Amino acid sequence: MVEITEKVELIKFDEEKYLKEGESIYTQRSEVEAVVDKIAKEGYSNIFLLGIGGTEFEFAQFEYLVKKNSTVEIYSINAADANTQRPRELNKDSLVITASASGNTVEIVEAAKWIVEEGIRVVAFTKKSGPLGKVAQNVIEANVTTGQCEYSYVLQSFLIYGLLNKRGEFDKYEKFADQIKGTFKNLLEIRKAFEPRADTIAKSIYDAPYTIFTGSGSLWGETLLFTMCILEEMQWVRTRPVTSSQFFHGTLELIEPGVPVFIIKGEDEFRKQDTRVEEFCKKINAEYYVLDTQEFAFDGIDPEFRELIVPWIVTSLLTERLAAHYEVYTKHNLQYRRYYRQFEY
Amino acid sequence: MVEITEKVELIKFDEEKYLKEGESIYTQRSEVEAVVDKIAKEGYSNIFLLGIGGTEFEFAQFEYLVKKNSTVEIYSINAADANTQRPRELNKDSLVITASASGNTVEIVEAAKWIVEEGIRVVAFTKKSGPLGKVAQNVIEANVTTGQCEYSYVLQSFLIYGLLNKRGEFDKYEKFADQIKGTFKNLLEIRKAFEPRADTIAKSIYDAPYTIFTGSGSLWGETLLFTMCILEEMQWVRTRPVTSSQFFHGTLELIEPGVPVFIIKGEDEFRKQDTRVEEFCKKINAEYYVLDTQEFAFDGIDPEFRELIVPWIVTSLLTERLAAHYEVYTKHNLQYRRYYRQFEY
Repeated sequence: MVEITEKVELIKFDEEKYLKEGESIYTQRSEVEAVVDKIAKEGYSNIFLLGIGGTEFEFAQFEYLVKKNSTVEIYSINAADANTQRPRELNKDSLVITASASGNTVEIVEAAKWIVEEGIRVVAFTKKSGPLGKVAQNVIEANVTTGQCEYSYVLQSFLIYGLLNKRGEFDKYEKFADQIKGTFKNLLEIRKAFEPRADTIAKSIYDAPYTIFTGSGSLWGETLLFTMCILEEMQWVRTRPVTSSQFFHGTLELIEPGVPVFIIKGEDEFRKQDTRVEEFCKKINAEYYVLDTQEFAFDGIDPEFRELIVPWIVTSLLTERLAAHYEVYTKHNLQYRRYYRQFEY
Repeated sequence: MVEITEKVELIKFDEEKYLKEGESIYTQRSEVEAVVDKIAKEGYSNIFLLGIGGTEFEFAQFEYLVKKNSTVEIYSINAADANTQRPRELNKDSLVITASASGNTVEIVEAAKWIVEEGIRVVAFTKKSGPLGKVAQNVIEANVTTGQCEYSYVLQSFLIYGLLNKRGEFDKYEKFADQIKGTFKNLLEIRKAFEPRADTIAKSIYDAPYTIFTGSGSLWGETLLFTMCILEEMQWVRTRPVTSSQFFHGTLELIEPGVPVFIIKGEDEFRKQDTRVEEFCKKINAEYYVLDTQEFAFDGIDPEFRELIVPWIVTSLLTERLAAHYEVYTKHNLQYRRYYRQFEY
């Protein structure tokens, strides 16, 4: 298998640039840690992860993992919902973490404006020169020209897990932060290991009239990220994302010949829920596909840190790789939209 | 319109029985209020609404409305997820409210067992003689033979809003509880007003290959209840439930001729999000349908109580009425399942 992997050439992917930009991202560690020092010194009562669409789904892993490993109150909130109903737990001592690659996501910019006006701190992962960057008091701009999700994840993990360290809840942060230097090399190799399968899967299901996607725990956000931001928005493919537990209360009845089920299988305590979906699909002889993160080795990190990078594996394999292979078969340009951001609404 | 309404005969509906069972439900007010007195006297640190599938979606209105109108910490939790990851906020002083019409929903029975073993109070709306009824310390069994959601809602509102009253957060509870005596007569008349439209809508979209449903705020639970429990489980209709805010971050791109959008439009602060979906659909000339709860009068209650009964209007019109009309056209028996509860999984 190793031999095959080494020879694999990824379609639509610039390996050299990927690694080079990854290196550049890693050099920003000290910049992010300076923000950690500042925030930790000031103190904060709770943390809000403010996103919408892709950023909301990307933050979900941190919400899950922080809730699991820390006593801090952390909330993931959709920016439109925050604008509609200002969360009662959001107060002057809160810390708001947000992100927008474009810097002009309307709901987030609107939210950041009133949040900053109320004197609440915002750390934004965005362009310094964009609308969001001009509003937030703390801005971290990624030194890259390409938008791989894992670039954001590495930067955000310096911030979020760095804050847990300062709370005395993640003593091994330094080791973790040292070890994730190898993230991009690992994720490149993992991509190669998955590449032939990405082709096979995309070829099999790209034209299904309706595809069910299940996920859970730290990977529920990734499930939404792939199904909504890639398949719905960028591929116009009809999908039904559903949690592994809710799948059994409605969606299961939709399975029939021609309706594939794609199971995203993680490694946390929710794995048994994913396995239940898998065993059910096997039992009824459904057409199903499993992406089991356990299949993929991530070298150079201690086993205890693995749960923190599992979502990064999924984002590399689905939101990046499988997306590219869908595009091959659908011939639907990933950049083309008919409605989203095409006019005022 | 009144004249037409009065003459309408509801299909597949026994009006007399509906009203009679409604009267029976209302007589249980004092029984539920005795539980309220007991729990309030004992005190509690927070409230968990424990459900799965239908019960989870039915409880969502209470989570939303309690969060809005009370300072008590309230959590809505999926029973399978609770079993997988016991919530850290759940402790000996917590109050758990759950429900299961059958009394044998496996995930809920499993959860109730360990929760009771840990010495935590459970109030269950279920049969006294069923597995859940035998586990919970407090059981409220509805005195009815038919399972209209609003029967549960009235009983649950005596409990939940009764508890808010004891906290000094709902002084007008007595008046509210008096006034909702007219719930069933109101919901019968509202059904009649909607009946011709239920037929028209079902006829138009029952065979769509894929239908998008949006909802928000106090009606997001009802959106899931109708799409998952009725359309997916009982009608095998491919649906895509999505919140009015998330709709704009992926799902909107799926709209094309033949893909209807069904907009559930409520009356709370999220209404503007629903309206945004409606205006978008109008702008792009989509095939869309709006169920606007504001259209329906509910007599005999003070305006300030209306937000509490808006979800009950939706459940009557969609989960009960529109379901019956879908069945007419799909010819798919609402009682038939191929997988759900048909074998071990």
